[in-house]
Amino acid sequence: MDRRAPPDAVVSGEEAIIALLAPLTQGSPGAFGLKDDCALLAPPPDTELVLKTDPVAEGIHFLPGDSPQDVAWKALAVNVSDLAAKGAAPLGYLMAVSFPAAPTVGWMTGFVEGLQAAQTWFGCHLMGGDTDRRPGPLTIAITAIGSVPRGRMVPRTTAQAGDALFVSGTIGDAGLGLQLAKTAALETAWGLSDAEASYLRQRYRRPQPRLGLAAALRQYASAAMDISDGLIKDLERMGRASGVASRLVAADVPLSNPARRVMARAPERLAELLTAGDDYEVLATVPQDKARLFAAAAKAAGIAVTEIGGMLPGPPVLSIAGPSGGPLALPERTGWDHF
Amino acid sequence: MDRRAPPDAVVSGEEAIIALLAPLTQGSPGAFGLKDDCALLAPPPDTELVLKTDPVAEGIHFLPGDSPQDVAWKALAVNVSDLAAKGAAPLGYLMAVSFPAAPTVGWMTGFVEGLQAAQTWFGCHLMGGDTDRRPGPLTIAITAIGSVPRGRMVPRTTAQAGDALFVSGTIGDAGLGLQLAKTAALETAWGLSDAEASYLRQRYRRPQPRLGLAAALRQYASAAMDISDGLIKDLERMGRASGVASRLVAADVPLSNPARRVMARAPERLAELLTAGDDYEVLATVPQDKARLFAAAAKAAGIAVTEIGGMLPGPPVLSIAGPSGGPLALPERTGWDHF
Repeated sequence: MDRRAPPDAVVSGEEAIIALLAPLTQGSPGAFGLKDDCALLAPPPDTELVLKTDPVAEGIHFLPGDSPQDVAWKALAVNVSDLAAKGAAPLGYLMAVSFPAAPTVGWMTGFVEGLQAAQTWFGCHLMGGDTDRRPGPLTIAITAIGSVPRGRMVPRTTAQAGDALFVSGTIGDAGLGLQLAKTAALETAWGLSDAEASYLRQRYRRPQPRLGLAAALRQYASAAMDISDGLIKDLERMGRASGVASRLVAADVPLSNPARRVMARAPERLAELLTAGDDYEVLATVPQDKARLFAAAAKAAGIAVTEIGGMLPGPPVLSIAGPSGGPLALPERTGWDHF
Repeated sequence: MDRRAPPDAVVSGEEAIIALLAPLTQGSPGAFGLKDDCALLAPPPDTELVLKTDPVAEGIHFLPGDSPQDVAWKALAVNVSDLAAKGAAPLGYLMAVSFPAAPTVGWMTGFVEGLQAAQTWFGCHLMGGDTDRRPGPLTIAITAIGSVPRGRMVPRTTAQAGDALFVSGTIGDAGLGLQLAKTAALETAWGLSDAEASYLRQRYRRPQPRLGLAAALRQYASAAMDISDGLIKDLERMGRASGVASRLVAADVPLSNPARRVMARAPERLAELLTAGDDYEVLATVPQDKARLFAAAAKAAGIAVTEIGGMLPGPPVLSIAGPSGGPLALPERTGWDHF
């Protein structure tokens, strides 16, 4: 492609798109500069691989107006977030992009910038992929590959009754950010400063995979997963997958200052925060006798974790203590389901 | 899901879809029965991994009327075909399915049947994935993972001047099959029997990855790739990726009997056959002194291979000798490009 082409010029042909993506493979010899039709991966010695595929589509996982830099970041981050929650370090990724129409030079340039920023931050490289054109929303389907020391992946099926329940970061920001991105007037209605509203929107557009937590999870967690479909729904999943009951203390769920400000005007929003998707924080169970060590290791890694409940004997049912100690009224739909 | 549900009932909820897919993970302990959010892969000792992602979408890679069994087969086969061409053995796959509307029980049952048949044939298992609902065509995005002995992947970038050029199977059947599937009246126009027309349609709907050729490719080929976008376009790609010229003798390109019958009535169709996509045959270059050994090894594996030209010194330009020895008139667009 002519690098002097104007930003609104259309990138014409698959080969031109591939040429723009090829620099993202630097550092990944098995990508063959996207000149081969497959990627080659030499697994590091004494490791196992952790694999995840989670596509993102315009209008569902990101908004039509989002910048290509943000779209690229999110497409990679939501997959790397899963690897982090399993205690894995990202190695590389494959990416299939479906365009409803040929992209412009400006969009592709921004998209490559966003991927470059994300992969530099996350420590991985593009290894291969595919592009096509089809009707429907712009879709980026990434498959991320990470490595863990042999036998050390942290499953979500192995939480034990008696374990403490931890969550990283803060919950509900992205759900509020999505609402703000869709309806700008909410900023005033919720009494937020520009900086606070911007923070919440960024939490929706730029999830931060908790890679710094991977080592502490491998060392101390009995089970872990990332939260993508809402804290409550994903906690229910972990309980079911592990066959144990769980208890969540709503008042202990960590909220950001902007989220607290929204809550102050409308305390009933708590249930929304606990069921909104897109948190991309880590939910982990830790045996009681390791809970303090886990929290200390997380703190040393610069990641806040908060104890928000625990796992209990009994059938896999979630009980929630509301902020006043009584039960919490939940909406009928307790998390994101596509169907 | 209620197994007595009528076939036209809708499968409701992601969990119900996942439950239908879970049996496909049997034999793949790292899939955790789809109860985890990531898959775990322990690479076999002394191997490297070969990875490929190639989504298929309704209306582009398969037809709206195709059976769910055929759709499933093709979605996996097009990815495994790439692995075979690299000399790799499939280990497993991740699959992200996007439905425009919740699927019916009948469709999902057929889809799982098709995947089960394909993975039994190809020797691999479902390891993980994702389902969502979004506008646009039904899309199945598979990432296939295979293994090769360390250092033995067959690239497409390493063809050498002087090598013989081979192709497996027959070329152009799927392109004719696609036309027949779209326009039934062509069967009569082309003078085909029902069996011949059915054969060509099957070649479009049920590509056969040439897994039996993998060992011969590893042992003898200097470069290889699968043909998905048309023989000519993919041969040009191999020449460019390897930096050598190539020569194709059109009269030597192997055609099936049904394709020969179509050709007999319209010899000008030859160019179409050489540029139609969806062949999923293997294109391989082999040093001259190993050409006979390669052909013998392929024959022993039950796969026909045909020498159709060779690689030459010089810039990466493809020259084609037409059936009468002169140049071959080609359509302006010499293969599939989405853009």
